[in-house]
Amino acid sequence: MANKYKVIFQPAGRRGEIEEGKTILEAAQALGVDLEALCGNKKVCGKCKVRIEEGEFEKDNMISGMSHITPAAPSEDELKHIKPEDGPGIRLACSCEVHGDLKVFVPERSRAGKQVVRKAAKELSIALDPAVRKYIVKLTPPSLHDMTTGDYERVLKALEEAYGLKDMFFDYTALLELQDALRAGDWMATLTVWMDKEIIKVEPGPVEVCYGLAVDIGTTTCVGYLCDLSTGKVINTESMMNPQVPYGEDVMSRITYAMTNPDGLKTMQDAIITGLNEIIEKVVAEVKKDGPNPGFAIDDLTIVFNTAMHHIFLGLNPVYIGRSPFIPAVQRSLDIKSRDLGLKINPAAYIHVLPIEAGFVGADNVGVLIAQEQYNQDENVLVIDIGTNGELLLGNRDKVCSTSCATGPAFEGAQIKFGMRAAPGAIEKVKIDYETKEPRYKVIGKADWHTHVEGKINAKGICGSAIIDVIAEMFKAGIIDKTGKFVMNLGTSRVRTNAEGKPEYVLAWAEETSINADITVTQGDVRALQLAKGALYCGAKLMMKKMGIEKLDRVELAGAFGSHIDREASLTLGLFPDVPIEKVVVVGNAAGDGARMALLNRAKRKEADDRARWVEFLEIATDPTFEKEFMQAMHIPHMKDKYTNLKAMLEAQGAPVASSIKG
Amino acid sequence: MANKYKVIFQPAGRRGEIEEGKTILEAAQALGVDLEALCGNKKVCGKCKVRIEEGEFEKDNMISGMSHITPAAPSEDELKHIKPEDGPGIRLACSCEVHGDLKVFVPERSRAGKQVVRKAAKELSIALDPAVRKYIVKLTPPSLHDMTTGDYERVLKALEEAYGLKDMFFDYTALLELQDALRAGDWMATLTVWMDKEIIKVEPGPVEVCYGLAVDIGTTTCVGYLCDLSTGKVINTESMMNPQVPYGEDVMSRITYAMTNPDGLKTMQDAIITGLNEIIEKVVAEVKKDGPNPGFAIDDLTIVFNTAMHHIFLGLNPVYIGRSPFIPAVQRSLDIKSRDLGLKINPAAYIHVLPIEAGFVGADNVGVLIAQEQYNQDENVLVIDIGTNGELLLGNRDKVCSTSCATGPAFEGAQIKFGMRAAPGAIEKVKIDYETKEPRYKVIGKADWHTHVEGKINAKGICGSAIIDVIAEMFKAGIIDKTGKFVMNLGTSRVRTNAEGKPEYVLAWAEETSINADITVTQGDVRALQLAKGALYCGAKLMMKKMGIEKLDRVELAGAFGSHIDREASLTLGLFPDVPIEKVVVVGNAAGDGARMALLNRAKRKEADDRARWVEFLEIATDPTFEKEFMQAMHIPHMKDKYTNLKAMLEAQGAPVASSIKG
Repeated sequence: MANKYKVIFQPAGRRGEIEEGKTILEAAQALGVDLEALCGNKKVCGKCKVRIEEGEFEKDNMISGMSHITPAAPSEDELKHIKPEDGPGIRLACSCEVHGDLKVFVPERSRAGKQVVRKAAKELSIALDPAVRKYIVKLTPPSLHDMTTGDYERVLKALEEAYGLKDMFFDYTALLELQDALRAGDWMATLTVWMDKEIIKVEPGPVEVCYGLAVDIGTTTCVGYLCDLSTGKVINTESMMNPQVPYGEDVMSRITYAMTNPDGLKTMQDAIITGLNEIIEKVVAEVKKDGPNPGFAIDDLTIVFNTAMHHIFLGLNPVYIGRSPFIPAVQRSLDIKSRDLGLKINPAAYIHVLPIEAGFVGADNVGVLIAQEQYNQDENVLVIDIGTNGELLLGNRDKVCSTSCATGPAFEGAQIKFGMRAAPGAIEKVKIDYETKEPRYKVIGKADWHTHVEGKINAKGICGSAIIDVIAEMFKAGIIDKTGKFVMNLGTSRVRTNAEGKPEYVLAWAEETSINADITVTQGDVRALQLAKGALYCGAKLMMKKMGIEKLDRVELAGAFGSHIDREASLTLGLFPDVPIEKVVVVGNAAGDGARMALLNRAKRKEADDRARWVEFLEIATDPTFEKEFMQAMHIPHMKDKYTNLKAMLEAQGAPVASSIKG
Repeated sequence: MANKYKVIFQPAGRRGEIEEGKTILEAAQALGVDLEALCGNKKVCGKCKVRIEEGEFEKDNMISGMSHITPAAPSEDELKHIKPEDGPGIRLACSCEVHGDLKVFVPERSRAGKQVVRKAAKELSIALDPAVRKYIVKLTPPSLHDMTTGDYERVLKALEEAYGLKDMFFDYTALLELQDALRAGDWMATLTVWMDKEIIKVEPGPVEVCYGLAVDIGTTTCVGYLCDLSTGKVINTESMMNPQVPYGEDVMSRITYAMTNPDGLKTMQDAIITGLNEIIEKVVAEVKKDGPNPGFAIDDLTIVFNTAMHHIFLGLNPVYIGRSPFIPAVQRSLDIKSRDLGLKINPAAYIHVLPIEAGFVGADNVGVLIAQEQYNQDENVLVIDIGTNGELLLGNRDKVCSTSCATGPAFEGAQIKFGMRAAPGAIEKVKIDYETKEPRYKVIGKADWHTHVEGKINAKGICGSAIIDVIAEMFKAGIIDKTGKFVMNLGTSRVRTNAEGKPEYVLAWAEETSINADITVTQGDVRALQLAKGALYCGAKLMMKKMGIEKLDRVELAGAFGSHIDREASLTLGLFPDVPIEKVVVVGNAAGDGARMALLNRAKRKEADDRARWVEFLEIATDPTFEKEFMQAMHIPHMKDKYTNLKAMLEAQGAPVASSIKG
C-alpha cells in the first residue's frame, strides 16, 4: 500500500489525500481542480505550471498537522519550460510528484476556465419523420369473458387496428410499466414506438409531446439540443466543456492516455457519460421538473463525434485508430439502449450513433455531410469543419471526398504562448492600426472594444478566432512578412525581442491583463498558426488535385471555431484556396445540425449510413507532393494562388503590406 | 427511526439486530433462518411455531448486554394453533412481534430443511437446431490498403462469405470484445450467433463447445440443466429450493406477499435471480473454472414456470393474475437480455421465456405441452402436472384443452398436520398390514423400510407422495371408508381419538421420530387430501365432459411429485378418471423437458408460441355442475366410475376393503 499525503490546491481550496508518486496533475484531476493539461501529460506544452507554496499553513487549515516537504528538484525537461520570470517555486504539475504533504497554488494562467460555448442551433428545414413517435390507444377493459388475453397482446391488437402497426414488441423495461399504466389510464394509454416496431414507453392516458436530444460531442465542447419530436422545434440547448479535457486536450493525447493508464479508457468514458447526463438533466429542467428521473422524458437521442470520441464514448479501445493501419472498431451506425451506456434518458430508448467514415473522419463529419448535402448540389463545395481537428469535405453530386488535417490545436489556442479557449478574459477580436501598429481588441465577457489606454481590462489570453485575426492583422500591418518572419525596427515598442532572443508583438501590456504579464504573439505562435493553416490549405489543395477540381465554387466554414472566424482574415492568411469572399459562407455547427436532422427524420439515418460509405476518404499525407504543397501552403497567403481579389481588397484598404504579397 | 433489538435463533445460532415491530418470521427471513412459512404470513397454517427461550444467556454470547423482554401475550388467532402439549413459550413466528431482545428456539418440526430435489433429466430425442451457434471466421489482417473498413464490417463480410449469414449485427457488449479478440486470435475468431442474426460473443481463435441452460422454476423447487448445444447432451444438473419459499409456500401466498409488502415483488424477484445465479455458478463449476465470471460460458437460457413465478421473475406485478379477471401482463414468449435481468451468464445472451397460456396456466404447462406433444397423437391423453398446483392437459391432434386445479398444497405436504417437503426425515412410502393395521414405511435418507420395532429412526413428517400412499393404504386396510370417514373400534391403538376429539391414525410412535411426538394422519389430513384429489378428478372429469371425451386412452403423470407417486395408490384414491393401470405413465419433469427442447431446437420455440395460443383454456370453476362434480369427486374413489379394473385388482390382492368400494 502506497503512502498517502495531504495536498491542498489554492485558490480553489480543494484538498485531499493523494498516493505517493502521483503527479500534481493527477492530484488535480482526482480532486477536480481546474488545471490546464493541453498536451495530456506529455510534458511538452508547459501549460500546467503551478507554484509549490512555501511557509506556514493557516491555523484554520482543515487538514491538520501537515508536514511540508519540498519535492525533488525539477528535471531537465521540466526546466525547459520554467523561466526566471515565472518566479520561485514554479513546477510543471505533470512532472512534479507528490512525496509529502503539499500546498499548491494554481496561477490564473494555468486555469482552464469555463469555456463560452458558441454552438447555437439554427432553424432547420427538414420533413418531420422522427424514429420515435407516440401513439394513443383505447382498449376494451378485460373481463372474465376474454381473460385469456394478456395486456401485451391487447395493446398490440389495438396498435394494429388503430394504426396498422404490425409485429411490434415491447422493450423489457417498457413492459414493466405496462400493467400499471393501462389501469392508471383507465385502459387508455400512450405508447412510444421506435422505428414502428418496438414499444419503448407506456404512459397512462393521452400524451402528445415527445422529446429527443441531438448531441454533438466535440474534443473540447459538448452540446445537446432538446427537440420536440412532434414539432421539430429546438426547445432548449445545453453545452459544457468536454469533461475529458483534463485527460488530454486533443485526440492523440486522449488516445495516449487510454494506452498508458490501466483504467484510462474507462475513466474517460465515465467522464463523458457523466457529463452528458449533466447536459440531459439541465436541458430538460425547464420542461420536466417532476419525478426522480426527469431525463426519462427523452425518448430518442442521436449523437455525433470524431472517431476517437466515438470509441471512447462507447468504451471501444481507441488505440487501433491511433496507430497504423488506423482501423476503427466499427463504421456503421449503431442503436444502443441508453441503459447499456448508463445515460439517464428513457432506459428503453436507443442512442443512435451516427456512422463514421474512417479512422480519421468521424460521425461529426457525417453529420456535416448530411446537413450540407454536397451530394445534392452541382457546385463544387468545400466544407471545412474546424474543431480541434480540421476535417474537409469536397465535391458535388457526382463525388464527395473527405479528409482530415492534422492542424494541431493552434486554432483552439493551444501551442500558442498566450492561447486559451474561448472563455471569459480571452481576446476574441483584434484590429491593428497599420501606421502606429497599435492594437484594439475585444475581450469575451466585455461588451466593448478596448485598448491599453483604458487601463485594467483583465485580458487573460487569446482565443482561436483572435489568433487568426491578430496574425492576419500583423501581416496587413507589416509586422510579419509573407513567410511569417517578423519585420523588426518598425519604431514601436510593441515589436521587440524577448528574453530568448526571439521576436514578439505585444498585444496587451501587463497592466491590461489579469495575469500580470504582457500578452504577446511570438514568432513561435506565428509558425504554429502557419502550420495549422498550411495543413488545411494543403489538404484542400491536394483534394482538388486528386479530384481534378481546379476552382472552388463555394467554401463553407463549419464548427464552433468556423462560426466565429473572420472571413476576411481567413482569406488574408490563406486558410483555404482562393474564392471570392462572398462565396465564403459561415454555416455554424453543421455536425450538430446533422445530428438534429437524424433525430427529426429517420430517412436521414439511412442517408447517413449510405453516404458515409459513398464518400471517399482521401489519405493526403501519403501523397508524394504533400511535403512540397505543405511547405508552400505555410506562406501567407499561398504563393501560387491568384489572389487578385484579395490583393485588390487589401490595396483598397491602404494596407502597407501590399508589396509583401506580390511574390 | 425504529428501535432495534437483538434476536438470536437457536439451534442455528443466527443473530442480528431487528427493528421493533417486525415479526419473528420476518426476523428469521432477514437472518436466513430455516423456518417453515407455509401460509405466507396469513396466520393459518400454524407451521411456524417457535419457542421464546427464558432464562440467562451464555456468557460467550456474541451479543452482549441482552435484556430479555417477554413479548406481548398471544392473540386469539394465535392461540388456536398452540396446544398445551407444545410446551411453554411456544408462539407463532408470523404473529409474535419483536419488542425487546429475544432468544428464539426453532423446533425441528418448524424447520423447512433442504428439500431432496427429484427432477433428474431424461434422454430426449430431438433434432439439434439450437438458437445459438458458434461460427469460426478467418479474416485477412487489415493494412493501409484497406484501412477504411472497420473490424465490425470485416467480421460481417467473413460471416456472409463463409456461412451465407446476412444482415447480422453485434450486441453492444459483444462489440466491446471485438477489437481485442480479433487481434488476440491473430484475426481468427469464433462468433457466437443468436437466431442467425445477432452476434452475442466474440472469442479469439477457434472455439467449438457452446453451453445453454434450461431452467424450470417451480413454486417449491428450481432446477437447471446445463446442455452442450453442440451435442444436445446434459452436462450437469443443479437444483435448489425456490428461495422465495420464505415469502409464501404457494402461489397465492406470494401474490399476497407482493400486494402487502411495499418491496415485496422486488424482494422475491431478487431472491429468485440470486438463486438462479447460484444454480448457474454451480452448474458450470465443473466445465469452466477460470475467470471472474464462469457463468459467462453460458450463451443461451430457456426458462419455464407457472404464471405467478413468471411474473415475479420478470418483475411484473402478479396481483392482476390473482384477482378477477385474472389477466396476465404478457402471454407470448419473450427474449430478454440476461444483463437486463441481472443473470450472470453471457451478458449479451438472451433469456428465452416460454409463453404462458393464461392467468392460471403458465410456461411450465407449455413446456409439458411441447414435451408430450398431445397435438401429434391420435389417442386422448390426459397429462397431469402435479406441482404445488395441479395443471391438466387433455386431448389429441384435433384439440387440446388445459386447465388449472386449485389442489391446494396438500400434495406437497402443506395443510397436512405432519406434512413436509421431500426432505431427509420425510416418510416417502407406506404400506399398512390390512389385518393388524400396523404400518411399514420408508424414510428419505434411509435405505431400508422400517417399522416401529426397529427403534429410533428419526422420522420427521410425511412428504406428498407418502400422503397418497398412506391414505390409499388406510382405505384399503379399512381404516377409512369411501367417504373418508374413520372407522373406529378396529382393535388397534393406532386408530384413536385425539385431544380435540377427532380420529387419527398413528403412523409412527414418538420414539421412532426426531420430533418427539407421534406422527399421525388425522381426519383433517384425509379431508385435505380428498379436496386435492377431488379437484384434480373433477377438473379432468369436467374437461372430458366439455370436450365430449368419454374415455381416456392414457394418463401421463408429470412433475416432481407426479414422478414419485405410486400409480396403484393414485388409482385407489381416484386422482383421475379410471384408466387401466398399464395406461398410467410416469413421464418425469415434462416442464423441464420442454425447456430443454426449446433450448436445443429453435422450431420448438415457435411451436410453443403457436401451441400456447392453440390450446384452449377451460375455466372449470364456473361450470354449473362444478360443485356437484367436485363433491362426488372427493369420494374414494369417485362414486359414479366404473372401476372394475381397480376392484378386480384390489380383490386379487386380497384387500379387506373390497366391500367398501362397491357403492
